[in-house]
Amino acid sequence: MKESFKHVKDSVVTMTEMVLPNDTNTLNNLMGGKLMHWMDVVAAIAAQRHSNSIVVTASVDNISFKNPIALGNVVTLNAQVTRAFNTSMEVYIEVFAEDIPANSKYASHKAFFTFVAVDSEGKPVKVPELKPVNGKEEELYKGALRRRQLRLILAKRMDPKDATELLALFDSEGIGQKE
Amino acid sequence: MKESFKHVKDSVVTMTEMVLPNDTNTLNNLMGGKLMHWMDVVAAIAAQRHSNSIVVTASVDNISFKNPIALGNVVTLNAQVTRAFNTSMEVYIEVFAEDIPANSKYASHKAFFTFVAVDSEGKPVKVPELKPVNGKEEELYKGALRRRQLRLILAKRMDPKDATELLALFDSEGIGQKE
Amino acid sequence: MKESFKHVKDSVVTMTEMVLPNDTNTLNNLMGGKLMHWMDVVAAIAAQRHSNSIVVTASVDNISFKNPIALGNVVTLNAQVTRAFNTSMEVYIEVFAEDIPANSKYASHKAFFTFVAVDSEGKPVKVPELKPVNGKEEELYKGALRRRQLRLILAKRMDPKDATELLALFDSEGIGQKE
Amino acid sequence: MKESFKHVKDSVVTMTEMVLPNDTNTLNNLMGGKLMHWMDVVAAIAAQRHSNSIVVTASVDNISFKNPIALGNVVTLNAQVTRAFNTSMEVYIEVFAEDIPANSKYASHKAFFTFVAVDSEGKPVKVPELKPVNGKEEELYKGALRRRQLRLILAKRMDPKDATELLALFDSEGIGQKE
Amino acid sequence: MKESFKHVKDSVVTMTEMVLPNDTNTLNNLMGGKLMHWMDVVAAIAAQRHSNSIVVTASVDNISFKNPIALGNVVTLNAQVTRAFNTSMEVYIEVFAEDIPANSKYASHKAFFTFVAVDSEGKPVKVPELKPVNGKEEELYKGALRRRQLRLILAKRMDPKDATELLALFDSEGIGQKE
Amino acid sequence: MKESFKHVKDSVVTMTEMVLPNDTNTLNNLMGGKLMHWMDVVAAIAAQRHSNSIVVTASVDNISFKNPIALGNVVTLNAQVTRAFNTSMEVYIEVFAEDIPANSKYASHKAFFTFVAVDSEGKPVKVPELKPVNGKEEELYKGALRRRQLRLILAKRMDPKDATELLALFDSEGIGQKE
Repeated sequence: MKESFKHVKDSVVTMTEMVLPNDTNTLNNLMGGKLMHWMDVVAAIAAQRHSNSIVVTASVDNISFKNPIALGNVVTLNAQVTRAFNTSMEVYIEVFAEDIPANSKYASHKAFFTFVAVDSEGKPVKVPELKPVNGKEEELYKGALRRRQLRLILAKRMDPKDATELLALFDSEGIGQKE
Repeated sequence: MKESFKHVKDSVVTMTEMVLPNDTNTLNNLMGGKLMHWMDVVAAIAAQRHSNSIVVTASVDNISFKNPIALGNVVTLNAQVTRAFNTSMEVYIEVFAEDIPANSKYASHKAFFTFVAVDSEGKPVKVPELKPVNGKEEELYKGALRRRQLRLILAKRMDPKDATELLALFDSEGIGQKE
Repeated sequence: MKESFKHVKDSVVTMTEMVLPNDTNTLNNLMGGKLMHWMDVVAAIAAQRHSNSIVVTASVDNISFKNPIALGNVVTLNAQVTRAFNTSMEVYIEVFAEDIPANSKYASHKAFFTFVAVDSEGKPVKVPELKPVNGKEEELYKGALRRRQLRLILAKRMDPKDATELLALFDSEGIGQKE
Repeated sequence: MKESFKHVKDSVVTMTEMVLPNDTNTLNNLMGGKLMHWMDVVAAIAAQRHSNSIVVTASVDNISFKNPIALGNVVTLNAQVTRAFNTSMEVYIEVFAEDIPANSKYASHKAFFTFVAVDSEGKPVKVPELKPVNGKEEELYKGALRRRQLRLILAKRMDPKDATELLALFDSEGIGQKE
Repeated sequence: MKESFKHVKDSVVTMTEMVLPNDTNTLNNLMGGKLMHWMDVVAAIAAQRHSNSIVVTASVDNISFKNPIALGNVVTLNAQVTRAFNTSMEVYIEVFAEDIPANSKYASHKAFFTFVAVDSEGKPVKVPELKPVNGKEEELYKGALRRRQLRLILAKRMDPKDATELLALFDSEGIGQKE
Repeated sequence: MKESFKHVKDSVVTMTEMVLPNDTNTLNNLMGGKLMHWMDVVAAIAAQRHSNSIVVTASVDNISFKNPIALGNVVTLNAQVTRAFNTSMEVYIEVFAEDIPANSKYASHKAFFTFVAVDSEGKPVKVPELKPVNGKEEELYKGALRRRQLRLILAKRMDPKDATELLALFDSEGIGQKE
């Protein structure tokens, strides 16, 4: 670990891909598995930039696939670290799809991946803290704690009754991702 | 829809892959994104077999990645439909990794994907019901309802207070996946 | 070599693949060369499981391609060791093709590959014997000797006049593979 | 069919490939399945050139793999039609491997593939005859008949007792391929 | 053509790639051909964004490769249209390479590609003009004329004596690209 | 360096590729970037054969893309070294495209790449001289000097006023490539 903290802008990554024939299903739309593959690569680069180390995928949060992305479309993936926890980092990914000749572009997917920073033997290493500097970054930073409790419960590593952040939401605004 | 119901055994699929250099990260271990790509393909085939129609990925539940899988290892993915809901199906995937010369094989990952059956224009079509016939199938079948409520909440399509199945668990055994 | 013998069930492997655009020829059917590539991978895994060592392809028997397999079809390859000969193994591969939305599945190809077990320097190592335990396994086991004589003759490593197993067949039932 | 006959030189094709990491096994040598894939492509182009039509792989004769080809090596595949039979063609493929920095090049494999010429509906169409014009071409042309009988017997489409060309060889020079 | 002119910012594209084993040569460095492939994709997307139409590569200017990019490095490619000429567009590409764990990033390559906008039959269509709005954009815009004359001369479609823009440079500052 | 000189025929390479779906753009034509990738591979093999060492791409000359090459076409690339300069070599590549069922074949592209021979640490090593032996080889050999001056000027490593070979052409026949 070289610095004690970093900013969101230090880890921002943009990746652009074209949907090729082998990436598509029988309906000529991008296969979900290929999109997750791209998400994993762009998110890993963001986590590398935050930690300046090798990173390995630790978990993927629930992703729902709503809008099909067609053959020949251009897919843009933006990734940024939202919060660091000792040796792990949460990364937020936004996916946009464009049909450029039709001049249409829309937000198609959102996802959260977590990564662990490791040394060349694969042992976890500490990562810098993340300092949010504006409202949107703050919101993602705070939500990271709630999402982390859900992940620990789903992995049976936390008792639901101890998930105080999460439980509060069942009475109020919901545990889903903020739009 | 040709039959009114089907059994788990009608949809079981086994896929075997070898981890090649381009599938690996800097530590020579399988990248998480590539594994999710394989999971999506094997689960889609299971959903196709249950519905005898084209299917598209609707969602992926939280996956955690614990054990690295090394270059040259053999990966076996088993998929089966656990429950059908009108036009959608939940698919359960178990992943095993083998270092054959070292004679070691272990369960490495579990995941739940959901798929929607569609016609050739991409419009949802009804699928047969699934009839579980033994204890393990029953358990996956029942859990599918709980996991579905969590998915709907996370996608902001259900109010957490209405998730009665899910809420009950916060007082008892947890909302995680059964081991 | 860890055990003195193994059973057919110890080496059985199932591989499932979807036919993607880059796998097809101008008629949108699976190219023969791609199918042979998959056969080689699944058969190598079967041979690895029997020998618990690295294996290299030693030979491929005559394969005939009868039924075209279309883009989007699902291909299932089952492989099993039929007999072991000191450092080599014969592997039998059955290929099935499915058009799942059309609800059709048929046996499309059969093939025999042989592999040699090697150490990390590439030198041949002894493999366990194979013990057949039922009629079908027995038949494949016996036929392996006949196919081996034909291979040796074709590789000019045996005088046809010494191929007693094979020659007998010219008077009776044929040297082809049993259906 | 545009011409009534063609020469060997009309169909000669040379293909050159570099062995990349994803083409290799655990010993860093070219996988047999990948080599067969390349053989199929180069042979299909030769058959296309002879027939000026779409072609599909009909069969592959016994291939034995003797010399490993290493990562980074250059592989040269030469293919030529040896004989035409109504709607099918036999293609002969020679494979050379080179370690260029080490200044070594050697003949590594030989193989025979057969192809059927088809129209755009996949129905067989007649192909021009092949006229051999020198000793080497003559020898391959004559041997094609013998290899065809063996293929038909192995596919159980000819009674071994009728394979007069082939049977004669059991008393004399062998049924293997000429070196 | 929907607008009469566009700005540079309308076409800016960023693509990020990781150097995988199959992209590298014997020295474990990125192959020049693979980098050109990525350049072509990112530049085509920029040209699509400027023209809102399908585009085809028309030419590539001289590229020199100085710094090797290692396996596992992250490559960032930025592309933007510099000038439009009736139906064609010049695109400028800057390539950066990063060894993230070593915290090093450097500008590695610059290139100019030209594209022609076409309709779905492949016939050229008019594209909007480009309006530069600052010094750097102005400089690239002006240089585009000089580079175009060189391209036309090299393609033997212009007499060198008519290349007035280009000839002037032989007396003064040089015809190379501005740093 | 083993020999003091070599001939053009020592480095000639032929590569044949089929245009597959993933190689094509929205118009079903070969993407320029993929063609450059193939050019780089075939030219690198020619340079390896001349130098019997590892080679790295040093530069690519201006390439113009005129004729689209369709999906399913066969692409033949011929490469040969035209001249050696101490540690570098210029390679000339001719590309032919064939629509075999339509019986059409045409010269589609020409290009010049340069490569540097290096040792296993990546340091330049001397290469044999090239001796042209006929008119066409002589012409490519002489032109190599002129193209080298243009490359040096474009890379800002030569003052245009010193490019005597090149300047002469502005009064006479042009600096473009000979047809």
